[in-house]
Amino acid sequence: MSFEYLIDPATGPQWQGVLPGRPAPYVLRRGEGEHAKLFGDLFTVLLSGEETENQFGIITADCPPGDVIPTHRHDATHETFYVLEGAVRLFFEDADGSQQTQLLAPGDFGFVPAGYAHAYQVVEPSRMMGTLSGGFERFFQHMGTPTDHTGAQPPFIPDFPRMQAAAQQHRMQFLPEHRWDVPE
Amino acid sequence: MSFEYLIDPATGPQWQGVLPGRPAPYVLRRGEGEHAKLFGDLFTVLLSGEETENQFGIITADCPPGDVIPTHRHDATHETFYVLEGAVRLFFEDADGSQQTQLLAPGDFGFVPAGYAHAYQVVEPSRMMGTLSGGFERFFQHMGTPTDHTGAQPPFIPDFPRMQAAAQQHRMQFLPEHRWDVPE
Repeated sequence: MSFEYLIDPATGPQWQGVLPGRPAPYVLRRGEGEHAKLFGDLFTVLLSGEETENQFGIITADCPPGDVIPTHRHDATHETFYVLEGAVRLFFEDADGSQQTQLLAPGDFGFVPAGYAHAYQVVEPSRMMGTLSGGFERFFQHMGTPTDHTGAQPPFIPDFPRMQAAAQQHRMQFLPEHRWDVPE
Repeated sequence: MSFEYLIDPATGPQWQGVLPGRPAPYVLRRGEGEHAKLFGDLFTVLLSGEETENQFGIITADCPPGDVIPTHRHDATHETFYVLEGAVRLFFEDADGSQQTQLLAPGDFGFVPAGYAHAYQVVEPSRMMGTLSGGFERFFQHMGTPTDHTGAQPPFIPDFPRMQAAAQQHRMQFLPEHRWDVPE
């Protein structure tokens, strides 16, 4: 199955160069940025580690309801979840090893540092913002696929080698055996 | 003039301990965090460098219209401006030294890296989110004053020694001679 139609392969994504690639000031309008499709979600990079001496990157995620991001942890990435619109249920292991789940509404904020198992489920059509340790923001382009189409699209389902390569590159561990035993 | 009434001096701010102070998972509900008043603005720290190995911190700012943050630059802090509600006019020097101004509406995003002169003016009652190089998020408590009162309050106007101490501690340079010559 080919998804090259998501961008023009002759020119690459139209958003190339929208970020300066070095610490220089700029402004993006709502919806602008580096777009990638992964599963049903549209991820947009607003800022990358290249602009921040690798301190942090920032993404937005537009997510259809029902989406489940399976349990995983990051070896080296701190990650935030700020709900702009909609509702997202976050599952995470606490510092004492106990399991927690919280339903995040607009304005609610979650933090999961490196090393902690977590997952989330999109309960309503949602828009989230995430700040990530610098470099991880491009994970979604590597596991997903760059796109210039920000409207309704079929999901992009990566094959296993692509998933494994992206996870390895960004030091992300999927935890398929992990079970959540938490009251909702 | 005394502002101790903003917190109970016997116990300190009620928000003490709301952030874990180390890389551990947590959730904040909308409005929760470390509150500080500076001029007319309410700054709330959602995440500090203590949780991110000093990579980044995150704040929100609730700002009344008319507020002007005078021209300054940071020696070592990268700073973002994401408008959640309202409208904010950002002024910044570009990488080629030219001056720019852009009116940011909800969903718009601005980035100003270390070393670049910038200022902003709050045009409508606004709520902004900022991601900052780790450590700078507490600047607003140091130049302003911690508070437990998030509703309407009189402005907190720091005296000059307090402003100078906070600016020096956080390597921020005010640029009172700077003039903006940009069409709005």
